[in-house]
Amino acid sequence: MKINVGVIAASGYAGGEAVRLLSYHPHVNLNYITSRKLITKYFHTIYPNLRNLSNLKFEEFNVKVAKEKCDFVFLAVPHRVSQEMVPELIDAGLKIIDLSADFRLKDVSTYKKYYKKEHTHPEILEKAVYGIPELHREQIKTAQLIAVAGCQASSAIYGLYPLISEGLIETNNIIVDSKTGSSGSGASFNEASHHPIRANSIRPYKMTGHRHTAEIEQELTNLNGGKQVKVGFSAHGVNLTRGILSTCHVFYNQNNTIEEKDLFRAYRKYFKDEPFLRLITQKSGIFRLPDPKLIIGTNFADVGFQIDGNMNRIVVLCALDNLIKGTAGNAVQCLNIMNGFPETEGLDFPGIFPL
Amino acid sequence: MKINVGVIAASGYAGGEAVRLLSYHPHVNLNYITSRKLITKYFHTIYPNLRNLSNLKFEEFNVKVAKEKCDFVFLAVPHRVSQEMVPELIDAGLKIIDLSADFRLKDVSTYKKYYKKEHTHPEILEKAVYGIPELHREQIKTAQLIAVAGCQASSAIYGLYPLISEGLIETNNIIVDSKTGSSGSGASFNEASHHPIRANSIRPYKMTGHRHTAEIEQELTNLNGGKQVKVGFSAHGVNLTRGILSTCHVFYNQNNTIEEKDLFRAYRKYFKDEPFLRLITQKSGIFRLPDPKLIIGTNFADVGFQIDGNMNRIVVLCALDNLIKGTAGNAVQCLNIMNGFPETEGLDFPGIFPL
Amino acid sequence: MKINVGVIAASGYAGGEAVRLLSYHPHVNLNYITSRKLITKYFHTIYPNLRNLSNLKFEEFNVKVAKEKCDFVFLAVPHRVSQEMVPELIDAGLKIIDLSADFRLKDVSTYKKYYKKEHTHPEILEKAVYGIPELHREQIKTAQLIAVAGCQASSAIYGLYPLISEGLIETNNIIVDSKTGSSGSGASFNEASHHPIRANSIRPYKMTGHRHTAEIEQELTNLNGGKQVKVGFSAHGVNLTRGILSTCHVFYNQNNTIEEKDLFRAYRKYFKDEPFLRLITQKSGIFRLPDPKLIIGTNFADVGFQIDGNMNRIVVLCALDNLIKGTAGNAVQCLNIMNGFPETEGLDFPGIFPL
Amino acid sequence: MKINVGVIAASGYAGGEAVRLLSYHPHVNLNYITSRKLITKYFHTIYPNLRNLSNLKFEEFNVKVAKEKCDFVFLAVPHRVSQEMVPELIDAGLKIIDLSADFRLKDVSTYKKYYKKEHTHPEILEKAVYGIPELHREQIKTAQLIAVAGCQASSAIYGLYPLISEGLIETNNIIVDSKTGSSGSGASFNEASHHPIRANSIRPYKMTGHRHTAEIEQELTNLNGGKQVKVGFSAHGVNLTRGILSTCHVFYNQNNTIEEKDLFRAYRKYFKDEPFLRLITQKSGIFRLPDPKLIIGTNFADVGFQIDGNMNRIVVLCALDNLIKGTAGNAVQCLNIMNGFPETEGLDFPGIFPL
Repeated sequence: MKINVGVIAASGYAGGEAVRLLSYHPHVNLNYITSRKLITKYFHTIYPNLRNLSNLKFEEFNVKVAKEKCDFVFLAVPHRVSQEMVPELIDAGLKIIDLSADFRLKDVSTYKKYYKKEHTHPEILEKAVYGIPELHREQIKTAQLIAVAGCQASSAIYGLYPLISEGLIETNNIIVDSKTGSSGSGASFNEASHHPIRANSIRPYKMTGHRHTAEIEQELTNLNGGKQVKVGFSAHGVNLTRGILSTCHVFYNQNNTIEEKDLFRAYRKYFKDEPFLRLITQKSGIFRLPDPKLIIGTNFADVGFQIDGNMNRIVVLCALDNLIKGTAGNAVQCLNIMNGFPETEGLDFPGIFPL
Repeated sequence: MKINVGVIAASGYAGGEAVRLLSYHPHVNLNYITSRKLITKYFHTIYPNLRNLSNLKFEEFNVKVAKEKCDFVFLAVPHRVSQEMVPELIDAGLKIIDLSADFRLKDVSTYKKYYKKEHTHPEILEKAVYGIPELHREQIKTAQLIAVAGCQASSAIYGLYPLISEGLIETNNIIVDSKTGSSGSGASFNEASHHPIRANSIRPYKMTGHRHTAEIEQELTNLNGGKQVKVGFSAHGVNLTRGILSTCHVFYNQNNTIEEKDLFRAYRKYFKDEPFLRLITQKSGIFRLPDPKLIIGTNFADVGFQIDGNMNRIVVLCALDNLIKGTAGNAVQCLNIMNGFPETEGLDFPGIFPL
Repeated sequence: MKINVGVIAASGYAGGEAVRLLSYHPHVNLNYITSRKLITKYFHTIYPNLRNLSNLKFEEFNVKVAKEKCDFVFLAVPHRVSQEMVPELIDAGLKIIDLSADFRLKDVSTYKKYYKKEHTHPEILEKAVYGIPELHREQIKTAQLIAVAGCQASSAIYGLYPLISEGLIETNNIIVDSKTGSSGSGASFNEASHHPIRANSIRPYKMTGHRHTAEIEQELTNLNGGKQVKVGFSAHGVNLTRGILSTCHVFYNQNNTIEEKDLFRAYRKYFKDEPFLRLITQKSGIFRLPDPKLIIGTNFADVGFQIDGNMNRIVVLCALDNLIKGTAGNAVQCLNIMNGFPETEGLDFPGIFPL
Repeated sequence: MKINVGVIAASGYAGGEAVRLLSYHPHVNLNYITSRKLITKYFHTIYPNLRNLSNLKFEEFNVKVAKEKCDFVFLAVPHRVSQEMVPELIDAGLKIIDLSADFRLKDVSTYKKYYKKEHTHPEILEKAVYGIPELHREQIKTAQLIAVAGCQASSAIYGLYPLISEGLIETNNIIVDSKTGSSGSGASFNEASHHPIRANSIRPYKMTGHRHTAEIEQELTNLNGGKQVKVGFSAHGVNLTRGILSTCHVFYNQNNTIEEKDLFRAYRKYFKDEPFLRLITQKSGIFRLPDPKLIIGTNFADVGFQIDGNMNRIVVLCALDNLIKGTAGNAVQCLNIMNGFPETEGLDFPGIFPL
């Protein structure tokens, strides 16, 4: 048995990656992809790796057609567009997996603070489930609307949620120093993404006020019993196309002592049954800690840590592929959960090494 | 039903890639991997992308154990070592897919010319089938020993064999200008592979006398009715880890005219039923011609061409992943043929874009 | 004593590099830089490496101002624009170093063939001297208009001119396989130059009909006593921002034998007094042959060769920095010649290693 | 007038960069370079960018020869070797600019904590001046021994010293998240530096216990009136060969408010007369904050900052070239100070853009 799935705005990197993953999913019949600019063109004209492999053509979006052809839609439209489209998709009875940021934040004032505009459909926010499968599995099973987590937010949350859940660290001075490849800025080109300008740089592009700060704080605050968690999030573009490494510098209470085994125990408690979260803490070898190089193309989030004996600091690292575990892969994992499929279905590519 | 397969010398890049592909092959039971240096260690200690995914451990090679556990062995030992091991593997009744160069050349004097030593087992050469599935499918079906083609040789052969087979080009002045990533030089490190030295270079590392010249000439000469084909092959290292692009500059007879449709017809004749050879000749778009960027991680060889109106030249391009279609992927395709499995079994990963 | 110099259209990569070199030239007073789009802005807003180092501001171009302030102008406008501007600059009595392609080709029908339009000022073509200092030094001394050679054309010419001049190779089947960084396509961004698309590629972007073919053929034909030389030129974009490596595959007459010492003699004859042409032919070491990695930021063209014993082929390699020896550096060298300055003035940066 | 200078152990990256800079220094006669392994070989055999430009040959080190030929020696030997050699160089009356770590730390117990061995010549430590010209200019003028600062330590110190000096931030919870190119690990190759392994990675290689922590704490503690400053330093290898970006996350007292102008004032106070420290805080454009891309090949340290309104955090960024402002360039700047030369002598290369 297969479910019918559509991808709205399949021409961007998030939507395109969703199309690729869904095309190879054993329980998915992907039968509807849309793009305003590319109507009637083959998907492989812009995702040329799928030449000879896909006959999908872009269509115009039409809610009636979507309703007719699909049970689920992945929504990969830009921020702000999503909140205009979701109400009619809900009315049409479709289940929606939204890759945009529009329904991630529960608090409209936080939304306004970070996105600088009023949310136009706050009444739908409570229906939306934040798309981190490991945190919201139960709600995802029955949700009509999933707001898939932001890529950089995901990397911070995967690194930190066991520590917050276990109350092991201070919650008002969390630093997340994130390094990301250029695909994270999307398929739109501009002077900043011009290859001679973007290549060979370490570009500190958003040191303060990054929108993913709000998502990270929301989720960690929930896990902190509602007590406000404060996160200082800073994002750098590095000389890669794909992948994120978030280095989280957190402090434990100076009066406590924390040992490695405490942290192992905490991470294992949360990761042990998770198919896509791997704890990486080797004592020797080159890849002792997470490195995006190892997880490109996969749905893994690799997490590792070290304790700083010089001060009461824990360094937590999380590596993931921004377009997979950071976006389209988590979306497919949510789809699997919503349908009772094994969570790894369609997501079992192990990555390539050396890449 | 599954076949039992082993990989001898699984720690190098060719052997390691074979292990990865075989681990995910639906009809393969990979139950024996060896490495002299890594006995008892987990495979994922050196292929860390397989953490949590593989329980394989390196064992010591022993022909009796191989015979007991395996129907097929992939041999990924260095050149010269292979010719010492193959006789006993044949005696043990194993089917062998050899990734080394030892049994590729049929002519011992050519072998000596390029490898500077006598071949120690010339009597086995005639049993070996050169592992380009598209050229030797029938023989592969029943072969006991496959000598998988060299990665750069493969790229040249895939680009040129339809033109030679159809007699469309001159055969005494073929130029192959090849660009390759650093993984092509293997897992052994040295000063030349030191990152600060190797990165950001276009290194002309073997302009003349490259060993793959002999393989290309052998195969194309066969297709040329035995009339000697001469190839000038030159290899450059470029700023990538994976992938090969071979640019073949060939000449057609000045008294002929050749039109695009003649070449389309020739390539389609040979490629139309091949699952892994794609003819890439778009009139517009960025990826009008083959680019390794699109096929990393896949078993595709993408081929394209242009005719030079300024002189009687055809430029043929072939892009492939050196460790997959150039080595381990072709090996698995041969395994599929030998067992009557669909040729694409275990080889259907479509690649990642943008990578 | 200093000469007064201006750079017209200093915002592009060629013009910008000219500004940088002229800013540090001991005999140049750079007092006029123009850009239509950036009037009143500081040069360092777009060349941020010159922050704190330059007070130059972009002005509007005006021929009277140019005449007043400058003895020499570097013209870095796009093709076609140059031929509109040069006549009035000549009338104003300025000496012009044109970085565009407009006055490189002497034959208007060749110009039309490659640029698809009529040349609007063919009467000026004969005044223009092709800006390869090593070939046209005498004419450059007294020229009013220099047409600086194209970057890729330069690399081919530097590799081949001694062989043609000495009559050592066949002249109807020369292959030039060129690899170039992304800055060669200029400062204008587009989808093809978007970092996630351009990075990690080997992109065969112009296999036939490249405009530099005409320049190379013109210059080599001159050196061939007017007998037409035919060049098959193909250009690939590689995973770098700067640098060109041209691999020239040429044939010698089958009835001749050619030895290394013959080629050494030929190259030394032409290179021995040239400050910026280096013959690179080491027997050992990693950098036995030219590699762009070594000459980025410099005005060197490194040339090397190998003879192919398998067929009557010579492989000649030339590496240079497309924006320096391939453009602005050659322009400054011409300026030095025109003024009787030492040719290396302002051009003595030795490059950085490892880069 | 020229001073006579030697470079001991000139074959490594730090020593080699010193040789390059000194070769072009207008007041330096570089007449002695040594390397145990390369005696009688030309310098350009391992720094091939200097082909045709340098006749220097490696000699064996001998203190008498050093004394005879040199006034100053740059010492680029490995850690531990330096402390064995310095005493005899001092006895010989030479002035020494030591690029190793051996004389950077004033406190022997701190030395032992980070280097795991006893210091063998603690009596010399007090003679040594820590080679950050901007902090120790007066002492450098008359010093006999300079201990040039570590590359990553330099980047942190340049970013933070004005804030510490002005008492603007908390001093017990400073986070420095550093990203560095592969040349920072030196010229010795190993599996970790093998190109296919090192390329395309973001490798968290030293999260805690990095030796440069001690240097940063020492210098900042001095500026903090002797009150212990605590630094959590973590170093990542990124996909570059050169350059460091250090992102410093620091906190100001929650009871204070800090505004941009306060920070501008602080940085300008310290940077305004410094030729190599640039404050980068543009409101618009792509390069609003420091990026190593802009300073490769130069002696600049670019510093910028942003204030985080969400928590009491300041993000400070410092970019520099690890082998120049982080090592050999600072060494030459010290040499200039010791001799009363203009500080920018031999260090005026402005960098290349785009690189």
